[in-house]
Amino acid sequence: MNRVAVLGSGSWGTTFAKVLADAGRDVRLWARRSEVVRDINTDQVNHDYLEGISLPATLTATSDVEVAVNGADAVVFAVPSQSLRENLGVWRDLLPTRVPIISLAKGVEIGTGLRMSEVIRTVGHIDPVRIVVVSGPNLAREIAQGQATATVVACIDHDQAIAVQQASANDYFRPYTITDVIGAEIAGAGKNIIALACGMAEGLGLASNTQASLITRGLDEITRLGVALGAQAATFAGLAGIGDLVATCSSPLSRNRTFGVRLAQGMGLEAAQAAGSGQVAEGVVSCRSLRALGATYGISMPITDAVFEVCYHQLPPAELVRSLMKRRHTPE
Amino acid sequence: MNRVAVLGSGSWGTTFAKVLADAGRDVRLWARRSEVVRDINTDQVNHDYLEGISLPATLTATSDVEVAVNGADAVVFAVPSQSLRENLGVWRDLLPTRVPIISLAKGVEIGTGLRMSEVIRTVGHIDPVRIVVVSGPNLAREIAQGQATATVVACIDHDQAIAVQQASANDYFRPYTITDVIGAEIAGAGKNIIALACGMAEGLGLASNTQASLITRGLDEITRLGVALGAQAATFAGLAGIGDLVATCSSPLSRNRTFGVRLAQGMGLEAAQAAGSGQVAEGVVSCRSLRALGATYGISMPITDAVFEVCYHQLPPAELVRSLMKRRHTPE
Repeated sequence: MNRVAVLGSGSWGTTFAKVLADAGRDVRLWARRSEVVRDINTDQVNHDYLEGISLPATLTATSDVEVAVNGADAVVFAVPSQSLRENLGVWRDLLPTRVPIISLAKGVEIGTGLRMSEVIRTVGHIDPVRIVVVSGPNLAREIAQGQATATVVACIDHDQAIAVQQASANDYFRPYTITDVIGAEIAGAGKNIIALACGMAEGLGLASNTQASLITRGLDEITRLGVALGAQAATFAGLAGIGDLVATCSSPLSRNRTFGVRLAQGMGLEAAQAAGSGQVAEGVVSCRSLRALGATYGISMPITDAVFEVCYHQLPPAELVRSLMKRRHTPE
Repeated sequence: MNRVAVLGSGSWGTTFAKVLADAGRDVRLWARRSEVVRDINTDQVNHDYLEGISLPATLTATSDVEVAVNGADAVVFAVPSQSLRENLGVWRDLLPTRVPIISLAKGVEIGTGLRMSEVIRTVGHIDPVRIVVVSGPNLAREIAQGQATATVVACIDHDQAIAVQQASANDYFRPYTITDVIGAEIAGAGKNIIALACGMAEGLGLASNTQASLITRGLDEITRLGVALGAQAATFAGLAGIGDLVATCSSPLSRNRTFGVRLAQGMGLEAAQAAGSGQVAEGVVSCRSLRALGATYGISMPITDAVFEVCYHQLPPAELVRSLMKRRHTPE
């Protein structure tokens, strides 16, 4: 795997492009905006999404998808989950055949209930054996700084997962392979909802005990949903489950957690989004789509329900915590 | 359950005494030192271990164990794990018969490899159906401040667990019952070792990704040890497992985490202990006793081994993180 195209230049896309370049790959990063392309190609930095991080010379940018994917031995999708379908409509006919398609997007599509790998399969006409999902405790800025990080690469074809593992492993980035794509994707989408709840608790002055309880119960409800969809429980006990959940819920770098803090401080959805440079907190979307999946499969998801009520029906965040703590005394 | 004796006036013993008093119990707290008794009985505060927290009037202190336990409907043991045997030798003949004995101590005894409930059974001659273990995401100061907290009460006799649940539940403290005493105790002892490792990572400047990976792998090795000893894996996925681990590893209030930070900053064991007001970090002891249990049962415990090497054989903390991240590329 010599040349890799990364489509999307947000903080995680840019960081994963750096990981690949530091692992010895020749990387072309597609950015929609020409200023980002210019900054990367002239200053070796992405000022908008990864300020202060020097990018390797083997990472170049282009605003032309065709240039990015031409001759690529693998293509990485790094756009927000709810825009993947639209982007795929444009990219579909340009993508090289047979090479692995690596998905970084976390989420479940509103309306269809499709996971990102399912969107890639149905809209992009990509064979599932080529689709690889990367998920784990992966706060972009920490990885960009070269902090030691483990992750999982998931593909129903284990050989394909191994190929991506070998192409991305470097001194600070340790990928482990799994074959449970469903588990990796549901864990990745669900963790953002729990991070919103933890941020709300934090904003209310409730510290580690409350947040650890939310993480424990949150993991339980995400696991039950995943297993109902065909995932393996072990995935949720691993890096893509507990690992990602703990990192996202505990770091001040987490966009979803910060969004929850703002909601608890009394901001509405739009004000909280504006305060976050207009970036979407994926959990606000995922609480809708995972709640719908839970309803379809008959899975009780009390934290997801409560986050949904805060986001869309003006439930005060203090009520969310109170309702979750006031449940009847029962066996665990 | 009207009257409860709490033996031990450290931060967790004092806090749990407050929890019981706030739940409507009449509580007598035994403290070894007369100054602590005086402070509690005159100022309603434990200056040494819970400064700034006003204790309820239904909580009184005594330095006479016989006075504390006289007429008690339950007795709580809240002394450090490695001193429980010695204390029990003194208390044994004073304890009321038939009432529940509640253990707050986390740890496995050095030399014997006994869990605290086993020490209580063998040294105190207490029937195991009377022994109840409390464990969960329970940072004492947060609970003392009235922050919403969930926990588990574990007893092989479920009715006994329910009795303690009902006696301790209040507005901010939500106990759930389980019957897996082994799981609750091994999780409670093991989490302090992982918190030491997370503190070391923090002290080295490695933030959420690395620490979340340590928590994920740490939970895995503690779970494998617990299951080998007869515990249920589900306990480790619950409040006493993930919940306690996440709270302890993420809070700046955690003594074990802080101890790990100090070791990473170059302090030796004794200097780190002196900087922590001479209080023992339980993880320093538990890494010895759990490592020995792991060896007996043939369980691989790489994080516990590495923490042991840092504590007792001068392995540099940076080497601990490096060795754990440098393991071969494998399936998860």
